[in-house]
Amino acid sequence: MKKFEEKTIESKEIFKGKIITLQEDIVELPNGKTSKREIIKHPGAVAVIALTEEGKIVMVEQYRKALERSIVEIPAGKLEPGEDPYDSAMRELEEETSYTCGALEHLISFYTSPGFADELVHLYLAKDVVLKENARPADEDEFVEMLHLSLEEAQEYVLHQKIYDAKTAYAVQYLLIQKLQGKR
Amino acid sequence: MKKFEEKTIESKEIFKGKIITLQEDIVELPNGKTSKREIIKHPGAVAVIALTEEGKIVMVEQYRKALERSIVEIPAGKLEPGEDPYDSAMRELEEETSYTCGALEHLISFYTSPGFADELVHLYLAKDVVLKENARPADEDEFVEMLHLSLEEAQEYVLHQKIYDAKTAYAVQYLLIQKLQGKR
Repeated sequence: MKKFEEKTIESKEIFKGKIITLQEDIVELPNGKTSKREIIKHPGAVAVIALTEEGKIVMVEQYRKALERSIVEIPAGKLEPGEDPYDSAMRELEEETSYTCGALEHLISFYTSPGFADELVHLYLAKDVVLKENARPADEDEFVEMLHLSLEEAQEYVLHQKIYDAKTAYAVQYLLIQKLQGKR
Repeated sequence: MKKFEEKTIESKEIFKGKIITLQEDIVELPNGKTSKREIIKHPGAVAVIALTEEGKIVMVEQYRKALERSIVEIPAGKLEPGEDPYDSAMRELEEETSYTCGALEHLISFYTSPGFADELVHLYLAKDVVLKENARPADEDEFVEMLHLSLEEAQEYVLHQKIYDAKTAYAVQYLLIQKLQGKR
């Protein structure tokens, strides 16, 4: 959909990092005027809501430098160049939690911050995950601690803001609605 | 919570824009090694799930340059310097939709992209909104089209990815769970 399209007059790359790229665009608005847009290009990411055989959701607590605090999230990570989101989700689940599963189900994809970034998160469901011996190790700059929550506990975490992360809350709410509607 | 804290060794501001600031930090990891972190500082934002007297949710469709497409969202916007989130939510609702209401209810706040940005969105509920004559005009670089969806229609939009925006899906799911649990 191109409604109210903002045509690019000029696009300047300000910074190209390991993960994100920042560009500043000058755009022509629908009324003919011009404006500036600050845009973050992101490779996209995956997130996995993983359920153990006991029906517990696997969460990880990790430090987020952008927030200067640690928060509770579902396992997630950015796409590597050329990597299929499905493979990425399998990899991130194993690296961050040592859990694996037979197959993932793609639930939904969503933009996290469309006002300034193009990050698209692909959310997968992993059922009956089991701990794998000799699982792929985490990235060497990643430190996480696992916790296991029932769906109802996770929703309490959301409502009391012990889960502060949108993608995690999204995933928890998604499953809870399916459960309340008798679909799962 | 400071678990697995990453101590800042050096922080360099790369870009300071109208809305976002980009910095690159060198951090000391819990194992003593160092790593780089690319971080976006954002002023924070508000979003409003507004219900008309007929119980329809007010949505806006707008072009998002970062995505190069228009998407359907609940009214939202960034905080102005020093602005209280409540006042910001009232302002954004009026500017983007011409709707106003007597009072807002704060539902929840969440981080949209904690992996690289500190954007915190404060979500408010506006009930029984009414169109205001002589409403504050939209920002001059903002073009939006309104639509009205029932809660069930909005959830269909989420599931079929006609709503692609995380904060909007979050808000719709939040209300739907309250309805399914008989709380609203």
